[in-house]
Amino acid sequence: MSTVRVPDAVPTPNQDSEALRKAFQGWGTDEKAIIRVLGQRNAFQRRKIREAYHQLYNELLVDRLFSELSGDFRTAVILWTLDPAERDAKLANEALTKKKRKIVDQLKPIIEIACATSPQHLMSVRKFYCILFNSSLEEAVSCTVSPPLRKLLMGLVSSYRYEGETVDGDVSKSDATLLHNAMKKKKLDDENLVWILTTRSFFQLRATFEFYKQNYGNPIDKDIKKCSSSDLSSILQMAVCCIDTPEKHFAEVVRASIVGLGTDEASLTRAIVSRAEIDMMKVRGEYFNANKSSLDNAVIGDTSGDYKDFLMTLLGAKI
Amino acid sequence: MSTVRVPDAVPTPNQDSEALRKAFQGWGTDEKAIIRVLGQRNAFQRRKIREAYHQLYNELLVDRLFSELSGDFRTAVILWTLDPAERDAKLANEALTKKKRKIVDQLKPIIEIACATSPQHLMSVRKFYCILFNSSLEEAVSCTVSPPLRKLLMGLVSSYRYEGETVDGDVSKSDATLLHNAMKKKKLDDENLVWILTTRSFFQLRATFEFYKQNYGNPIDKDIKKCSSSDLSSILQMAVCCIDTPEKHFAEVVRASIVGLGTDEASLTRAIVSRAEIDMMKVRGEYFNANKSSLDNAVIGDTSGDYKDFLMTLLGAKI
Repeated sequence: MSTVRVPDAVPTPNQDSEALRKAFQGWGTDEKAIIRVLGQRNAFQRRKIREAYHQLYNELLVDRLFSELSGDFRTAVILWTLDPAERDAKLANEALTKKKRKIVDQLKPIIEIACATSPQHLMSVRKFYCILFNSSLEEAVSCTVSPPLRKLLMGLVSSYRYEGETVDGDVSKSDATLLHNAMKKKKLDDENLVWILTTRSFFQLRATFEFYKQNYGNPIDKDIKKCSSSDLSSILQMAVCCIDTPEKHFAEVVRASIVGLGTDEASLTRAIVSRAEIDMMKVRGEYFNANKSSLDNAVIGDTSGDYKDFLMTLLGAKI
Repeated sequence: MSTVRVPDAVPTPNQDSEALRKAFQGWGTDEKAIIRVLGQRNAFQRRKIREAYHQLYNELLVDRLFSELSGDFRTAVILWTLDPAERDAKLANEALTKKKRKIVDQLKPIIEIACATSPQHLMSVRKFYCILFNSSLEEAVSCTVSPPLRKLLMGLVSSYRYEGETVDGDVSKSDATLLHNAMKKKKLDDENLVWILTTRSFFQLRATFEFYKQNYGNPIDKDIKKCSSSDLSSILQMAVCCIDTPEKHFAEVVRASIVGLGTDEASLTRAIVSRAEIDMMKVRGEYFNANKSSLDNAVIGDTSGDYKDFLMTLLGAKI
């Protein structure tokens, strides 16, 4: 599922730290060496490198990367180097504090963290959020997001869903009926719809969506779209997609980030950095199916320099 | 704050396990020995005893206690022996599955776990809940509790509040205004009221309640009571009390459990077992202030036998 290419013989964390230190020293920075080391290590290995680097040189690796690098390359390398839960806490905070023209675009990272990562990961993100920002994630959401989006968003970020794969067919059936009733009333802030989406396990919800489609004719996100073109409708469609087929959501994030003039580097970086170790293989397949062109070529065409090399390394390119 | 009397020289977990094993063996069970060992150990020591016992005798201590003991004494000893988060997960599940005549009484343990324990503890309770009951706590709440209680309850059990003691005076001021607006409208399911109570840190909320009282004349729980006599009003008053002065809430739980004919042993046990290591000293002081009589005498007067001896041991009586 991961596209990250970890070499067969991995240097020790101390050796990797020394290689990074060497890349930082002297005239200029050796960006290629940084890509070679960090771009080819998994989350556990990167944590060990952060710890070893700190112990060896008494400085934080992330701080040093910040002072050595710049631009989109710096952002990508730092997001990748951070603990994944700390990274997502920072992405969530940025989303909640940096206004965007469209609230739906602004809240995208929050929906992704709440609906397309594991319950355990979301719990860790919330812990990091409290430590880093002296506020709970749900508190920040409630202060930033107004009704009618607030209830749904707060429910999504506060959930700690059951992780087991057991699915109850009767529950899927009755939940699908409740969801369909909400659709019939065109009531997207329906109480049942919100508690079902915010508390049921991901496996249970996928079964419910499947039952819904088979019994009521349409996939539920299509019915949500038909109800209204409000922000709430867009957010609900996004949440359903992230729960049901996260690879579709992220393939679309990549596509939207490169389409037209200019590139939305923040979104491109977020999608690749956050999914490289989870389901980037599937995202790549989904991208191809949807666009009849390769995600890798799209990235190559829209980026350049060290930034391009780094993203391509995360996508498994040989360096 | 704790009333549990841990001896100066504590036996090793292996020695404690051997003493327990001895108490189980032979003709009859030596209840006094069980009280002497388990009733005088803190949560960390009890965990070590559980582990040592399991390793030495290849059986779960809690299972053995279940087969050796009976009645209210058994319930109390087992609740005390469990990991506190596992205990609360079980209490929450019992509350959600065992119907009581009054929903407010039924939901009391849920409010206590959500509002009178630390955010970290609540998180651990939710983890245990998923492991033990194949469902998340908030999912169980949403299936059991109907509107208008559901929104508040789900928010309370899903919270992971900031634990720091920092308080923002401006936030207290503006939150108190929002709360007062809800009171003026007599709207107890007001959106602002719910998100303030379910997301702000306990320290922040206490400062807000204080500001409210000083500026609007009444403590907020009095104003909530004046709004209506509904279940939602009772639950809100209880939540405010558990957040603001948990010792008052638990002093009242003890009083209500012994008042009149008969004793509500389940509530009495829950109050003493769950607060003995947290704030039982304060609960005892509060009980005396409110009732002009001692909590210890009340327990002695309403209980008997090993059950009485065990509760009194948790209250610090010498044995």
